[in-house]
Amino acid sequence: MTLLSRLRAELAPEQLITDRQRLRTYECDGLAHYKVVPAVVVLPRSAAQVAAVVRACAEERVPFVARGSGTGLSGGALPHADGVLIVTSQLRDILAVRPEDERAVVQPGVINLQVTQAATPHGYYYAPDPSSQQICSIGGNVAENSGGAHCLKYGFTTNHVTGLQVVTPDGDLVRLGGAAPDTPGYDLLGAFVGSEGTLGVATEVTVRLTRLPETVRTLLAAFPSTDQAGAATSAIIAAGVVPAAIEMMDALSIEAAEAAVHCGYPAGAGAVLIVELDGPAAEVDAQFDEVSRLCTDNGAFETRVAADDTERQLIWRGRKSAFAAVGRISPDYIVQDGVIPRTALPTVLRRINEVAADHGVRVANVFHAGDGNLHPLVLFDDDVPGEAGRAETVSGAILDLCIEHGGSITGEHGVGVDKARYMPRMFTDDDLDTMQLVRCAFDPDGIANPGKVFPTPRLCGERPGRHRGAPPLQEAGVAEVF
Amino acid sequence: MTLLSRLRAELAPEQLITDRQRLRTYECDGLAHYKVVPAVVVLPRSAAQVAAVVRACAEERVPFVARGSGTGLSGGALPHADGVLIVTSQLRDILAVRPEDERAVVQPGVINLQVTQAATPHGYYYAPDPSSQQICSIGGNVAENSGGAHCLKYGFTTNHVTGLQVVTPDGDLVRLGGAAPDTPGYDLLGAFVGSEGTLGVATEVTVRLTRLPETVRTLLAAFPSTDQAGAATSAIIAAGVVPAAIEMMDALSIEAAEAAVHCGYPAGAGAVLIVELDGPAAEVDAQFDEVSRLCTDNGAFETRVAADDTERQLIWRGRKSAFAAVGRISPDYIVQDGVIPRTALPTVLRRINEVAADHGVRVANVFHAGDGNLHPLVLFDDDVPGEAGRAETVSGAILDLCIEHGGSITGEHGVGVDKARYMPRMFTDDDLDTMQLVRCAFDPDGIANPGKVFPTPRLCGERPGRHRGAPPLQEAGVAEVF
Repeated sequence: MTLLSRLRAELAPEQLITDRQRLRTYECDGLAHYKVVPAVVVLPRSAAQVAAVVRACAEERVPFVARGSGTGLSGGALPHADGVLIVTSQLRDILAVRPEDERAVVQPGVINLQVTQAATPHGYYYAPDPSSQQICSIGGNVAENSGGAHCLKYGFTTNHVTGLQVVTPDGDLVRLGGAAPDTPGYDLLGAFVGSEGTLGVATEVTVRLTRLPETVRTLLAAFPSTDQAGAATSAIIAAGVVPAAIEMMDALSIEAAEAAVHCGYPAGAGAVLIVELDGPAAEVDAQFDEVSRLCTDNGAFETRVAADDTERQLIWRGRKSAFAAVGRISPDYIVQDGVIPRTALPTVLRRINEVAADHGVRVANVFHAGDGNLHPLVLFDDDVPGEAGRAETVSGAILDLCIEHGGSITGEHGVGVDKARYMPRMFTDDDLDTMQLVRCAFDPDGIANPGKVFPTPRLCGERPGRHRGAPPLQEAGVAEVF
Repeated sequence: MTLLSRLRAELAPEQLITDRQRLRTYECDGLAHYKVVPAVVVLPRSAAQVAAVVRACAEERVPFVARGSGTGLSGGALPHADGVLIVTSQLRDILAVRPEDERAVVQPGVINLQVTQAATPHGYYYAPDPSSQQICSIGGNVAENSGGAHCLKYGFTTNHVTGLQVVTPDGDLVRLGGAAPDTPGYDLLGAFVGSEGTLGVATEVTVRLTRLPETVRTLLAAFPSTDQAGAATSAIIAAGVVPAAIEMMDALSIEAAEAAVHCGYPAGAGAVLIVELDGPAAEVDAQFDEVSRLCTDNGAFETRVAADDTERQLIWRGRKSAFAAVGRISPDYIVQDGVIPRTALPTVLRRINEVAADHGVRVANVFHAGDGNLHPLVLFDDDVPGEAGRAETVSGAILDLCIEHGGSITGEHGVGVDKARYMPRMFTDDDLDTMQLVRCAFDPDGIANPGKVFPTPRLCGERPGRHRGAPPLQEAGVAEVF
């Protein structure tokens, strides 16, 4: 029986897409310059259907790729040309909201913001907030261990997922973690979150809900340069304040945001910081004065406090629209994602500008300053010969700068297909082999999202190392070796 | 070459113990009713020596067990009679304290409290605080994912370890994680922390340092019963306050602590709560009044506030001495460790008392109420025939109660050798198989701490599931199946 006839037996006709024209809808995710049309798309409606599809793939040895809303920026949900694309958009039920345990249980296709909307009437919300939170799915967040502006204080997706039901690459339904903060045995929950679809497909997600803060206060500070804004960021953290968010935008991204959404940021700023504090009113008020003073001490020429929710929304609108707004000032751009130690911010930002100038390329910087997570936007015009290549060069050089300063090649967008080639710059062969051992344990045939995360495919079934084919311990006469 | 001659080549004579009398020193860890004398003990002084020892074990197929200070309470460091015990006590250097990055780098034999002592002059401390923090090692904390009274607010060891250098069971030195909050690829760091020595030996640990709080305030509240103390605990959490710690002791443990350290808790209490708040003074003061009121509202007949550090120490002395103090009122006792949802506290405590009464056994309860982590102390006299057996029965029944109420068989002491038999009560065969896949990936010969965590050994080299011996993907003509 071919795979297709097996899928037809498991799914209703409208859950199976094989028409070439309709398949093209799924040819890319948010990183649109990689495009692959999948062989077939399935739209399962239950965990059991996901398991049946994966089991069929395993038995027929066909690759599969899972996809949530397709907003990822590293090509993690790029389809396989000979494989099945498992789209989770029909798995969109919120199964439980339990404020008394601070938990919600949702299907993977549920939209990030819907979790918060379901929890708000109970006084809670779901803390991880990617910029795409209005459309991205919880399943995609789990795959990519997504971050967001408020992850500085609250942590990434991995800190907010306490349990998963997943389909392993051989089609078994297993549970990892649970409602409790920790469970015995290996923390495979942690290993699964952020594994970018290479260890299986999440079919149910138990998330931690966070209490809505009593108070939220937001400040916009304008600085002559990114150097001074970076110094203010370090000073705030060094003072022991943990803001909910510290975001930075440089002059070029301010210009773009202004053109797009008229956010009215102070004119002539070389950089702005958005600092948000939340928590008990007594704490927030005390810390807010300190943050404001530290900005001024470090060169802010204007600080502006949101008087109400409307003003707060206006401050955030500039930041949240920044990626898209860059389209106003450049026909094409690469969104880069790297991490550096916070203390290296001024140095690395200067170096990025130097590298960009050397190649005649403009770079706009919009990023999570508080945790050193850079998002340089490398601008180019694809119609001008050579520009795309120069932009690609600068974008790669930025990652090298991040590694050189003790950082990482991705903060929250993942490795996916796009950055697999950079993995050997961060990890030794032994490090990568150790990860591959785990991949092979889950997926010996390499059918779960192949081509992602790792730079070179690895044949499973044989370990690297020194004692291949050693007999089992009990046959080796262990007691006699002394 | 036998293992012993290989070890002699790698280590100085004083780093190798083979004398039977001296080997007996290492026959158990903190769970002293399991005793096994190891075949040999090694005391490595560098990561390279640990790697050399493990590589020799791998090549000679000899089991090894790593041991820190030996304070564990689940027998996780119980030696193997035919194996090597790797004692990390000579790996005791603090390699770096970097307050500007909020990190310290230490060797595994460093004592938990020493990290705090090294960080305090910089305004920082190491948050996870097992009761044994004056003697337990960071390496042991990593193996067991240790908790402590203040883990309610600050999280477990896994939340405070950002990077590890480990020796894998084939003797490779690899790095997992780093100084940044998240790294690309699989989160094997998270899987390693709490793997109880079955995935390798940590040789260097990068920990997160936490800023010393501006203020700490401690309250002791006495209640007529554990029901009321449990209700107060739920009310405090429901109010959105996250205390640094909420600890509960029942009448029997208060009696024991009083006899041992004269802590002067209010007379006639059926239960006491110790609630500690820390953070900015403005926040702590506001919340402290609320906590005090919630205790009174829920039936506290006396609340006492520590006026200074001496009074604070006195309040904590009763709690921290409680395990040992029980020796004053009973010749023998089992320290149990289970977790339940906080909201189930009153019910489960009542059921524990019923089960204990049914078997004519006394149970003292001392525990981390805030996160539902129970530590029932089951008292018995080994000299009275039948008592040990009845205590064992009650102790096991307590774990069943935890599972029945949606909890877990261990909160912070680990599975080790003691609770491996309970794992099938929490996990399905598929769940356990998935964990075993990872164990086999790291350790196909089963030489890393064998007999721990899992109820039954598993032969590696063959996967469970449906497609054994399937040919590699690329030979299977994937593109043709449609």
